[in-house]
Amino acid sequence: MDFSSFLTSLGTSFVIFVILMLLFTWLSRKPGNTVVYYPNRILKGLDPWEGGSRTRNPFAWVREAVSSSEEDVINMSGVDTAVYFVFLSTVLSILVLYGIILLPVLLPLAATEKRVYVTNSTSEGTFNELDKLSMGHVKEKSPRLWAFLIATYWVSFVTYFLLWKAYKHVSGLRAKALMSPEAKAEQFAVLVRDIPPPPEGQTIKEQVDSYFKSIYPETFYRSMVVTNNKEVNKIYEELEGYKKKLARAEAIYTKSKELGKPEGSRPSMRTGFLGLIGKEVDSIEYFNEKIKELVPKLEAAQKVTLREKQLRSALIFFNSRVAAASASQSLHAQMVDKWTVTEAPEPRQLLWSNLKVKFFERVIRQYVIYIIVALTILFYMIPIGLISALTTLDNLKKFLPFLKPIINIDAIKIVLEAYLPQIALIVFLALLPKLLLFLSKAEGIPSVSHAVRATSGKYFYFTVLNVFLGVTIGGTLFRTFKKIQKDPNSLVDLLGNGLPGNATFFLTFVALKFFVGYGLELSRLVPLIIYHLKRKYLCKTEAELKEAWAPGDFGYATRVPGDMLIITIVLCYSVIAPLIIPFGVVYFGLGWLVLRNQALKVFVPSFESYGKMWPHMHTRILASLLLFQITMLGFFGLKKFYYTPFLIPLPIISLIFVYVCWKKFYRSFHNTPLEVACHELKEVPNMEQIFRSFIPPSLNSEKADDEQFEDALSQVSRMGSFA
Amino acid sequence: MDFSSFLTSLGTSFVIFVILMLLFTWLSRKPGNTVVYYPNRILKGLDPWEGGSRTRNPFAWVREAVSSSEEDVINMSGVDTAVYFVFLSTVLSILVLYGIILLPVLLPLAATEKRVYVTNSTSEGTFNELDKLSMGHVKEKSPRLWAFLIATYWVSFVTYFLLWKAYKHVSGLRAKALMSPEAKAEQFAVLVRDIPPPPEGQTIKEQVDSYFKSIYPETFYRSMVVTNNKEVNKIYEELEGYKKKLARAEAIYTKSKELGKPEGSRPSMRTGFLGLIGKEVDSIEYFNEKIKELVPKLEAAQKVTLREKQLRSALIFFNSRVAAASASQSLHAQMVDKWTVTEAPEPRQLLWSNLKVKFFERVIRQYVIYIIVALTILFYMIPIGLISALTTLDNLKKFLPFLKPIINIDAIKIVLEAYLPQIALIVFLALLPKLLLFLSKAEGIPSVSHAVRATSGKYFYFTVLNVFLGVTIGGTLFRTFKKIQKDPNSLVDLLGNGLPGNATFFLTFVALKFFVGYGLELSRLVPLIIYHLKRKYLCKTEAELKEAWAPGDFGYATRVPGDMLIITIVLCYSVIAPLIIPFGVVYFGLGWLVLRNQALKVFVPSFESYGKMWPHMHTRILASLLLFQITMLGFFGLKKFYYTPFLIPLPIISLIFVYVCWKKFYRSFHNTPLEVACHELKEVPNMEQIFRSFIPPSLNSEKADDEQFEDALSQVSRMGSFA
Repeated sequence: MDFSSFLTSLGTSFVIFVILMLLFTWLSRKPGNTVVYYPNRILKGLDPWEGGSRTRNPFAWVREAVSSSEEDVINMSGVDTAVYFVFLSTVLSILVLYGIILLPVLLPLAATEKRVYVTNSTSEGTFNELDKLSMGHVKEKSPRLWAFLIATYWVSFVTYFLLWKAYKHVSGLRAKALMSPEAKAEQFAVLVRDIPPPPEGQTIKEQVDSYFKSIYPETFYRSMVVTNNKEVNKIYEELEGYKKKLARAEAIYTKSKELGKPEGSRPSMRTGFLGLIGKEVDSIEYFNEKIKELVPKLEAAQKVTLREKQLRSALIFFNSRVAAASASQSLHAQMVDKWTVTEAPEPRQLLWSNLKVKFFERVIRQYVIYIIVALTILFYMIPIGLISALTTLDNLKKFLPFLKPIINIDAIKIVLEAYLPQIALIVFLALLPKLLLFLSKAEGIPSVSHAVRATSGKYFYFTVLNVFLGVTIGGTLFRTFKKIQKDPNSLVDLLGNGLPGNATFFLTFVALKFFVGYGLELSRLVPLIIYHLKRKYLCKTEAELKEAWAPGDFGYATRVPGDMLIITIVLCYSVIAPLIIPFGVVYFGLGWLVLRNQALKVFVPSFESYGKMWPHMHTRILASLLLFQITMLGFFGLKKFYYTPFLIPLPIISLIFVYVCWKKFYRSFHNTPLEVACHELKEVPNMEQIFRSFIPPSLNSEKADDEQFEDALSQVSRMGSFA
Repeated sequence: MDFSSFLTSLGTSFVIFVILMLLFTWLSRKPGNTVVYYPNRILKGLDPWEGGSRTRNPFAWVREAVSSSEEDVINMSGVDTAVYFVFLSTVLSILVLYGIILLPVLLPLAATEKRVYVTNSTSEGTFNELDKLSMGHVKEKSPRLWAFLIATYWVSFVTYFLLWKAYKHVSGLRAKALMSPEAKAEQFAVLVRDIPPPPEGQTIKEQVDSYFKSIYPETFYRSMVVTNNKEVNKIYEELEGYKKKLARAEAIYTKSKELGKPEGSRPSMRTGFLGLIGKEVDSIEYFNEKIKELVPKLEAAQKVTLREKQLRSALIFFNSRVAAASASQSLHAQMVDKWTVTEAPEPRQLLWSNLKVKFFERVIRQYVIYIIVALTILFYMIPIGLISALTTLDNLKKFLPFLKPIINIDAIKIVLEAYLPQIALIVFLALLPKLLLFLSKAEGIPSVSHAVRATSGKYFYFTVLNVFLGVTIGGTLFRTFKKIQKDPNSLVDLLGNGLPGNATFFLTFVALKFFVGYGLELSRLVPLIIYHLKRKYLCKTEAELKEAWAPGDFGYATRVPGDMLIITIVLCYSVIAPLIIPFGVVYFGLGWLVLRNQALKVFVPSFESYGKMWPHMHTRILASLLLFQITMLGFFGLKKFYYTPFLIPLPIISLIFVYVCWKKFYRSFHNTPLEVACHELKEVPNMEQIFRSFIPPSLNSEKADDEQFEDALSQVSRMGSFA
């Protein structure tokens, strides 16, 4: 790719972004679109345009985003979102600090190096204007390499310093949220799994109650045995479906009264397959009948489930936060694979069907899935390598000669050259996350947030290995194929050789991601169109409409690995081709602004894990740093720089840093520290309400009496606390 | 070594053992020796000869040992000793099961192999009668190797099965001891380290009290801040020294009255250096004066220590076992390196000076010491290798030709050949444990039992690496030196080559250890002689006499690695030279008998860790098994057996077995499970007594009032529990 096609790519991306931003300014001012652009505010019961949002100034949202405080983010979107912003701003400051030193020092050093003869045979003929600004342009054994070596140290230590500060800050955020005086249901509960078979003549519920009453005579409140809800869920969903359909039929009937005849036309339907065949009936009557039929059926199924389908897992409720926090960290049974107790996740993020998975089954599932994921990563490596090699224009012409006439048109040529490989890559990557989330859930993880973290981790390794290493090695392999055949090089050499040549590919990739990606994010064009289509042709009732504009959450499972890929790319190229740093700064700066807007106004988080995502992100940034350090070792070696061994301490320091952070901070992200849990509550917690919040909707009786919960959901303890 | 010298070695060892056993029978019947042969019974206040021990039957002790139950051992010597016997009996049954299959099958298979020509060049000329019974005698690619391969599987699975059973059994023993209805002081306390600096105007004690009162308003009883006792200990020891000397002087005076003049002769002494120079004074008066001087000085020092020398560490007492067990497992502070809480060890095994060591300092110390130990192991490797190579008689003659005339005398030759290398080895090994114990304590470990386990672990790796591998590789290197020079082999090949040649060396080593070692152990000749010498020439008072016969404890730090070395040797040779199995059986059988006697009558354990040694032993047996499996892989490879890859699953199964055991059992050895801690006590615990049992003797005031403990040792909490 030459310089002009690079500028074209950058230019068109920027134009698209400006257009999308103007569209956003125009569209978000229309009252009919508030539910698309301000759903979070609306759901929180706030005025969407409070604070003068409705101006014609296309940068008004920027001002609002910048002026919002961390407190605002936590109030509007929770701790997890605030932690994500700590991540964004930390990376942003890391990159800014890189740039301040590296750009003014390294770029002139590289550009002013006089090369009479290109000695590096692998990059022969591929050098262009951009490559002159990179370390690849510096001669072998040149004393100028000292500056690059010191830059490597600067990059490492800036990263350590800011990550340490960020970890402390996040740790404080988490503690503050956990010690909040508001009672949160999950802070009073623990999850027990691997309950041994109950003794003869006892139900699991009785066994659980007597076990925990004997250990916690004063703080045990009540237990809720997990049941196999498959059947009751089926009936419940059927019932809910009929209720929705009834509401829809009634809405149609009401509307027909308004529009046509004053007595209205009652909607009718056929009862057979897809409403196409069978007897024609009055819809409203039919659905009412069905509901009347199902309600007692549901009640009966609930009773049966609660009594007879108890599983070997339970939620235990305590009447104080300290008791629950302490219980979740203590070993209860002599055999570690029995009565395993962990912190209870929020009710909304419990993965009920995973709770019954046994101790060693979880371990086995985990390893099996690791193997599957490893195979997936290796399997995907092949097509991505091919894509990277094939989708350069020259290769296209070579392998698909019939395309030649089209490609030779200048305009098409430039656009294709600029975007083809990147688009191929992005499309390719969109296929995987669902598979990884499914696999993560199959590990037997009990909460959604944990599954999301597990997915994010898998996806990170996937993207780094495949996209970054795949493109680099794939591209290099193709270019240096003949050379390799003669003398197969090691991976480190390959990396060192491949990196400079692929710098412009990644520059364009980053630019595409931030301009087009964040432009689409901000303008919400796709959700807007879908919403308007649904509103016009599908939705009849308020509930359906609300479902149509439900904004979704941040989607950390893919968002975080996406950001991580950018960090890895920018980090690894930071010293080799410092020109990438400004691109990284724009990516994270723009990302911060756009997502701040989305966090305050659009996305509604679907769970709260109190920042448990942070250690995950922290470790992966450091993994990228380690990759960078090892790459630099290889690259300096290739430059035949005598003082390359001076870099050897860096990976060791990184590993020590990871270890120290892990030792100092990690456990308080895994467990709730007691000094945090012991903070006073605003008022005595309503234990009944806390208990009820964990009852799955399909088991939640409308009568709200305790009688039918007697079975799997145990009674209030009559001892101690409330005596 | 030829067959006759082997038999000589065995024979003399056996004769020594018989003599020692007869000596034991004779000596232990003398009333004057009861304190040497029955100290544990005497200290427990039991009649030494209860149950007819005083017979002339030299096997009476065997009958008693066999008829004693595990319960008896726990009562007389604690859970740790009982666990040690589980270890001995498990290994014994493992070896018996090996022998039942391996001996009748493999020995004939090896012996009946017809070898016209010795193909294995490395063992050329070293084959003798014993070697014919080993796998080394089987021809390459022989189908008979199938039997040896299946034997390898048998050995592995017997080990897994019996270890699993033993782990379950020990886990039960531990739980039973921990749930005992007797209140044990350490079960009510936790150890807090890494207390952050107290806020302005607060003492550490106030800070600790308010911190734990706020977390445990109902179960917190009292705290005891650790102080820097260096100065007070010095005064206390001085005082105790004078008290002892006074008692001694008084005893001499009393005796002189009985013997000589009725008014007696008052002992006198000089006050100067070593009592040799200076003014002559009356001893009794002088010591009394000194004591009178020191008592107020001690009290003043105690007050200063308690008030001003508080360290950032404390013991926290709870009024229930569950509360303490739960607290010791919970994270208290948001920063994991602050307020770290662990289970409190027994008062008698607290290493006070280690309690102040900070979190990351402990980590650093640990790694530094690992490096030192690794260097020690490597450093010792060289001399041991030399010893093994040099102390064969032929080499002695070669290198020290002036010894030739002595060595050529037949009797001396046989004895030297039989014992020289083994004695050199045993002496060499006796030098190390003290160094390793010192290093382990320097890690910052808070309890003696933990330091002993750490020492035992280090010593195990040392013995296995140096003795076993060192002798094997050293011996082989020497023999095949020229071959190696041409073609340096890998370690596995070396092992495979070296093992058969060294089998007889280890046979003699094991025999020496059990006959002479256990003979000396049983007869207690050395302690007996020392005791009688001391009684006659040194001891004047009852206290001094009691000190002279103090029996000591089992000394697990060296005993367990010693046993482990035998296990490693027997395991590794079990299939290659099955003749070693009976030797192993005798070692552990005899060991069980002799030590059972010592446990019931002699040794007094110096600590109780409720079987925490077991996971340590379990893992190391499996490490030996893994070494065995890898050795077999190499050995079958050398035999050019096509089906060698059938052995590859074994090391993997071993690792899975280690992992599963660790997951299922380990945590309940590290922490006290709550279901165990919640068992009812016989009576309400005397908290004051529990608290007082932790006060170090130098701080223990004789006045027994609370006033002076107000400072570092906090007052009884006035809240909750006792209200």
